[in-house]
Amino acid sequence: MLTVVEALDAITSVVAPGPVESVPLAEALGRVLAERVDSDIDSPPFDKSLMDGFAVRATDVATGTARLVVVEEVTAGEVAEKSLETGQAIQIMTGAPIPDGADAVVRIEDTEVEIDQQQTLVRIDTRPVTTGQDMIQQGTSMRRGDTVMPAGRRLRPQELGLLAELGQHTLSVHRQVTVGVLATGDELVAIDRQPQAGQIRNSNESMLAAQVRASGAVARELGIARDNPEDLAAKIREGLDCDILLLSGGVSAGRLDLVPEQLEAAGVTEVFHKVKLKPGKPLWFGTSKDAIVFGLPGNPVSSMVCFELFVRTALRRLAATDPATPCPTAARLACDFEFRGDRPTYFPGRLENQPDGPRVTPVNWHGSSDLRSTADANSMIHFPAGNQLYQARQWVEVHEWAGRA
Amino acid sequence: MLTVVEALDAITSVVAPGPVESVPLAEALGRVLAERVDSDIDSPPFDKSLMDGFAVRATDVATGTARLVVVEEVTAGEVAEKSLETGQAIQIMTGAPIPDGADAVVRIEDTEVEIDQQQTLVRIDTRPVTTGQDMIQQGTSMRRGDTVMPAGRRLRPQELGLLAELGQHTLSVHRQVTVGVLATGDELVAIDRQPQAGQIRNSNESMLAAQVRASGAVARELGIARDNPEDLAAKIREGLDCDILLLSGGVSAGRLDLVPEQLEAAGVTEVFHKVKLKPGKPLWFGTSKDAIVFGLPGNPVSSMVCFELFVRTALRRLAATDPATPCPTAARLACDFEFRGDRPTYFPGRLENQPDGPRVTPVNWHGSSDLRSTADANSMIHFPAGNQLYQARQWVEVHEWAGRA
Repeated sequence: MLTVVEALDAITSVVAPGPVESVPLAEALGRVLAERVDSDIDSPPFDKSLMDGFAVRATDVATGTARLVVVEEVTAGEVAEKSLETGQAIQIMTGAPIPDGADAVVRIEDTEVEIDQQQTLVRIDTRPVTTGQDMIQQGTSMRRGDTVMPAGRRLRPQELGLLAELGQHTLSVHRQVTVGVLATGDELVAIDRQPQAGQIRNSNESMLAAQVRASGAVARELGIARDNPEDLAAKIREGLDCDILLLSGGVSAGRLDLVPEQLEAAGVTEVFHKVKLKPGKPLWFGTSKDAIVFGLPGNPVSSMVCFELFVRTALRRLAATDPATPCPTAARLACDFEFRGDRPTYFPGRLENQPDGPRVTPVNWHGSSDLRSTADANSMIHFPAGNQLYQARQWVEVHEWAGRA
Repeated sequence: MLTVVEALDAITSVVAPGPVESVPLAEALGRVLAERVDSDIDSPPFDKSLMDGFAVRATDVATGTARLVVVEEVTAGEVAEKSLETGQAIQIMTGAPIPDGADAVVRIEDTEVEIDQQQTLVRIDTRPVTTGQDMIQQGTSMRRGDTVMPAGRRLRPQELGLLAELGQHTLSVHRQVTVGVLATGDELVAIDRQPQAGQIRNSNESMLAAQVRASGAVARELGIARDNPEDLAAKIREGLDCDILLLSGGVSAGRLDLVPEQLEAAGVTEVFHKVKLKPGKPLWFGTSKDAIVFGLPGNPVSSMVCFELFVRTALRRLAATDPATPCPTAARLACDFEFRGDRPTYFPGRLENQPDGPRVTPVNWHGSSDLRSTADANSMIHFPAGNQLYQARQWVEVHEWAGRA
């Protein structure tokens, strides 16, 4: 049986980065950039005022007080016509280019304008003014030709703002992946139906489709496949049109666990079956010519955990995200916790921000079928195999789940 | 001038929770639940096997070994017809109901089946079996009538899975808010245009619209309003059709900062103007009969910071999220950092998960117009007013930004 690390390695070796497409910047939130972006501009593109006030020569206001002749006004979007001489000031707005000859800005709050006969004067009374005050020099943020963003970057609002500044109105990104979700089992009924004796509602489809969407991929709900070869084979064929097919259920050791054999019959080659973890041991993983297939365990918490650890790794790998494997964080345990288990366990936890750092509380979890407790959780605590009494305030490894509260 | 806390209080007092609508569960990811959900079922709905194996009476296998007569087989979705007597076992699949008379499950790996004349026998060889082993009792996760989810909960995959289990196929959620984004300024050009001398591209629209979408709201891009009363008034009228209108620029002290007066002329009443923080001091906030309006500063990092602190608070309040105000976390500084400033400052930082807990590095930030450095950041460090040398490994307050890398 593979360890979690071996299983993750197997996934990253088998899955290759997927195809690329162009999208308008306004639709690129959450997508992954497929090529490096270099700057075609200096930013700021010119020496720029950071304040509304007056552009001056710092030497004229070295003492902090001065009385200067206002020779022009320049607003954002304009360029001053005059060059500033000693004894002169140009009124300037935030974002406007610093006029030639000026090397500092005095903000308007520290000035008073006087109309004296034919000329306008500004009286300045402030602290000593130094060169560069309240302005930013051309190219301070970036220079033409700088690499400003590497390929593989997931595009957040700040990346989109920066790419807009660079005029990158169309972006080359990794194509959004389509993930089919197929729940299997004779005990399942649709969520709008009343379960009869021995039946439960198909919660996995809703949960997995939401995990897919929270990961930035497109979910396709394929309904319920019954525990017979014909129905399973037909729905698997439909699902193999997706980039990734997720099945839940039917991968354990039971007589009706038909998923592995029907997947192989459909041309999906097993890469591994079973991983040493809890919950999620029965996980099956394989690939066909065009699709990546995960046979997830049927219990909802097992499915959820396997998605977060393994399916998300495949999704990151398809988008060429580096690293593709999970990046856990750490937090202090909120309470003593007695862990008992012979497999590495991913235990639902509630990670909270505290003034002295992150704190995680194991929730009152009743095992792999207990979905309710996961709604109190936002992460999973990784406990290595072996019974151990963990102490309150001890640091533990935590994996945050997709989609925050 | 208001403090940040006073400004946040003003927003939460003025903004009231918004209207409610019904949506199908499959479209509810990220939405906020508008009413409490109680369970109409026990979960599990019956005593349930957690393993493929054999349902037994624990007393029959108290030593760990036994040879029992297999009287039936029950798969998931079925109910056993027989009641289990002493000396008998019923073969059972994961998820299937525990037959009457049985009180434990022995997993298939610890069994061997023998066909002995007319009857099927199972030979068990394992550790002593105790009552309740490898099964879960009806109602362990939740009982009919339990409140399983409060109103105000943001719906993540695990909530959607749980609500699906409860048959809540249609959900009452807060209506998605529409947020108009209107950049102002004569210096701005569209992102697909080449800026001329003194001009810059309109990066704020792309950035703010992405922040809106990352917050789960609908963004409407309204283009650029020029620095004249007519254009501004017309675009403001259009924007007031949205639930929230964001303007950027035109709120400082400059002669062309026309936004406050044009907003008032359009029937928007000022609640506050200017907040003691950096960047973002010129922030303007007001309300009209139907809309909430933020006049954000024109510099992109100021806009971004004000969105994260103030606009997101309004969005949370509209969705009745409790608390609506920001929930900062804490992290250790990665390096010594000399802070100089007379206003509380929200400094772009890179928050990283380390094995010993979260660590934050102030990025090389050149002020409110420097969008580039924010692409290296994922959060902002809150430094109170006052020059201070912060030590590496010192805990600081950190606000995570929407949209993770």
